[in-house]
Amino acid sequence: MRPLLRVFVRRLTGCVQPPQPSSSESTLDPDDWSEVRRSGHELLDELLDRLSSVREQPAWSPIPPEVKERLATPASRDPMALTDVLEDFRRDILPYATGNTHPRFFGWVHGTGTVEGAIAELAAGFMNCNVGGREQAAVYVERQVIGWMADLFGFPSDCGGLLVSGTSMATIVGLAVARESTAPGDIRRRGLEAAPAPLIAYASTGAHVSIRKALELLGLGAGSLRQVPERAASGIDPRALEAMIAADRKAGLHPFCIVGTAGSVATGVIDDLEVLADVAEAGGLWLHVDAAFAGALILSERLRSRLAGIEKADSLAFDLHKWMHVPYDAGCVLVRDAAAHRATFSADRDYLSRFERGPGSGDPWFTDYGPELSRGFRALKVWISLRSHGLDRLGRMVEKNCAQATWLADRIEDSKSFRLAAPASLNIVCFRAVAPAEIPIESDELNREIVMRVQESGVAVPSSAEIDGHLCIRVAITNHRTRREDLALLLDALERAREAVLAAG
Amino acid sequence: MRPLLRVFVRRLTGCVQPPQPSSSESTLDPDDWSEVRRSGHELLDELLDRLSSVREQPAWSPIPPEVKERLATPASRDPMALTDVLEDFRRDILPYATGNTHPRFFGWVHGTGTVEGAIAELAAGFMNCNVGGREQAAVYVERQVIGWMADLFGFPSDCGGLLVSGTSMATIVGLAVARESTAPGDIRRRGLEAAPAPLIAYASTGAHVSIRKALELLGLGAGSLRQVPERAASGIDPRALEAMIAADRKAGLHPFCIVGTAGSVATGVIDDLEVLADVAEAGGLWLHVDAAFAGALILSERLRSRLAGIEKADSLAFDLHKWMHVPYDAGCVLVRDAAAHRATFSADRDYLSRFERGPGSGDPWFTDYGPELSRGFRALKVWISLRSHGLDRLGRMVEKNCAQATWLADRIEDSKSFRLAAPASLNIVCFRAVAPAEIPIESDELNREIVMRVQESGVAVPSSAEIDGHLCIRVAITNHRTRREDLALLLDALERAREAVLAAG
Repeated sequence: MRPLLRVFVRRLTGCVQPPQPSSSESTLDPDDWSEVRRSGHELLDELLDRLSSVREQPAWSPIPPEVKERLATPASRDPMALTDVLEDFRRDILPYATGNTHPRFFGWVHGTGTVEGAIAELAAGFMNCNVGGREQAAVYVERQVIGWMADLFGFPSDCGGLLVSGTSMATIVGLAVARESTAPGDIRRRGLEAAPAPLIAYASTGAHVSIRKALELLGLGAGSLRQVPERAASGIDPRALEAMIAADRKAGLHPFCIVGTAGSVATGVIDDLEVLADVAEAGGLWLHVDAAFAGALILSERLRSRLAGIEKADSLAFDLHKWMHVPYDAGCVLVRDAAAHRATFSADRDYLSRFERGPGSGDPWFTDYGPELSRGFRALKVWISLRSHGLDRLGRMVEKNCAQATWLADRIEDSKSFRLAAPASLNIVCFRAVAPAEIPIESDELNREIVMRVQESGVAVPSSAEIDGHLCIRVAITNHRTRREDLALLLDALERAREAVLAAG
Repeated sequence: MRPLLRVFVRRLTGCVQPPQPSSSESTLDPDDWSEVRRSGHELLDELLDRLSSVREQPAWSPIPPEVKERLATPASRDPMALTDVLEDFRRDILPYATGNTHPRFFGWVHGTGTVEGAIAELAAGFMNCNVGGREQAAVYVERQVIGWMADLFGFPSDCGGLLVSGTSMATIVGLAVARESTAPGDIRRRGLEAAPAPLIAYASTGAHVSIRKALELLGLGAGSLRQVPERAASGIDPRALEAMIAADRKAGLHPFCIVGTAGSVATGVIDDLEVLADVAEAGGLWLHVDAAFAGALILSERLRSRLAGIEKADSLAFDLHKWMHVPYDAGCVLVRDAAAHRATFSADRDYLSRFERGPGSGDPWFTDYGPELSRGFRALKVWISLRSHGLDRLGRMVEKNCAQATWLADRIEDSKSFRLAAPASLNIVCFRAVAPAEIPIESDELNREIVMRVQESGVAVPSSAEIDGHLCIRVAITNHRTRREDLALLLDALERAREAVLAAG
């Protein structure tokens, strides 16, 4: 025991004679801390070795059947040494990750993470905070991080905000506040019965499925979502949007929310948010923006004009684990009107009732701004990763990825084997393999098979998208680790996979 | 590069000549991995030192104003060495945790965590998986963990399940499936309009606020929750429940769900779940059980009979971060009918469309069982912590805490300064300080002040509850690190705080 602490404890405990610990009062602490310490250091070294040499490993590996069998065994009643548990982890889990830490992972839209963010998780795990509220540093860290985001996106400094698992949850929160604002106080008390009329929301055809899922969860039903036609260059067609709103009003419905998309799933199209803000304001609608990945453009001096108008949103949902490279999971919602945000989720508390001092004090509590009462210390990895890198460097990664997408699209345009399926937008390149006329192979089948073969080879992970009803190969570069050499390797692997499929077909 | 990897990469890359990395293609990786490595090891040592000596530290510390100021500064545009960021972390964050890792933390209902679970977070951070679905080990690990829980609670092995942040989210998922089951398919499509009549849910007066919040989020409104009177010994009064259901039916409403409480917030009362299951079955209602903390009784041969009937629930929500000591956050929902669970949340996917092979394959996907599409590798800390300790040892911790509560309640009964506010149930002891008749101090004020003084002293963290409209001191022992000596120190601190308040008053 350190001398100061000993004094502290002596002072605290005063004259009391503590009972001796009885053997029946064992804890879950290790009998031998040094063994756990060794295991922890070994694990850290292995994880660092692996990450620093990730370029030399397969981007993805199939899981052998025997591993799957072992990962289906019943729970053990007996304890097991940490070193043995970690041995199993190394054998059965570590090699079979999603792959998004790899420089040639271009599947879906996954961030790469940072080593600093990963180390932060260790600290958060040890601190073991429940960040629902109370007076603790974790709450201040989360507020600070939310403040950074508000500042970045041009939101008022007193806006509401919350870290969540990702944009799906962020959208649920944003749309819940939008719903509540149609009949403040009444929706919470009486439910949707209190709505002035059936509520209708609007989003582009390219909007993410999470918008529909949010409306379903909120009790509005999938039918409450109008899919507004989009244009390749500027997203949602505002004329069509206004016409739909007018038609719904005429039909006795209550248009309540426009959802702008900043970065459509398939091709990265960004709605004209200035125009959406105008339409929303004119019609008294809520503007929610889903900026899941493209929100990160705000980090780049050069690219942030693509998001013009985002600062006018009533609520904004985006991910930190995508193009901002915080390890999974980390998303954020900002709500312009903090009072409306709080009014949607705050709860009277009995046992949670506020104290003026001590851990039960502190205000505001995050539990008053979302559906979750238990919340881990997600903010720490954001705080450590963003401070380590600084906003400018993160912005340069975004710019790099966009330049890489342009470079890749140029190669595809030059290629005889592949053809662009859509203009390259931002960081996403969609294309299709071309089959010689004499080989009778269905295009979807060819492209699907190419994607799977490249993935299985371990060289790279592209994914796919559906454009105009047909499957295409989709390369989404939200990867700070990617270099052009990686894209060259990808192209080569695609070329060879195409040849192999054509030869087999 | 290891020889085998070199061969692998050479084989993969074949004849291609990769372009040389350009300096404009920097990454977020450290220039000097050895520096990051050193910082990581130092941090791990410090965290281990701290945790292994936690008994000698204050249970909670007030946050100095200058720390709060530093935790409110704007984001940095420039990078900062990890070692400096961690220096700030050590100074401003680490000392000001919630305190639930401390052996004398008895506030609210927080678990203690385990060192194994904390180390697991490091591994999850490095792997950086998005566990929404796909073919990856993390999905198998989560399925395995859910299988363990299904087995433990007597749920069918093919039930639906999902790890979530905690019981609040788990309850949202469970009640969403319950809501959907009132008009399968239609609620998702048409929203609550499709419900046969306004939906009504039932829970005891002691039920957690998260039930009401879930109903609000789902669009049913707080008014859809009937608070059924409870009895101290067996929770919900079944006669009253049946009468309320009948009255609502008569009024043209649609009773759809009974929420059983296994461990009420204030005093830990457990509803008679057998009886609730019978009432639910007879009336065709869904039975959801909120077993946030008391679900852990299932781990104890001796205590699990208190949960009899829990295996009949249609959905079950509980926390792993409370009495099962997985680090925050980790909760779980089980849904008996996996098809109904999936039907509530599954989405057609375009870009996510299933592949037969590669990372885009795998089934089922967790995104089809809940509102979240981005999901971190929460399952790993569950897997590592539960395997390290085994179910039996975890069960013994639960038994130990209950015995400690009984011991503490006996001391309170013997005391002249304090009086029990409710019979000690399970692991919770509620009591009030007694003031001599000649000192004119309001009881709520006295007890509130005692709680805050003990918390501020750093000796221990009790919290409070409201019983019969009056504030009492509440000691909830979900702490594997607690020994009787800690409770003795708590009692002593309470005694001295009482004297000080009375002297000041």
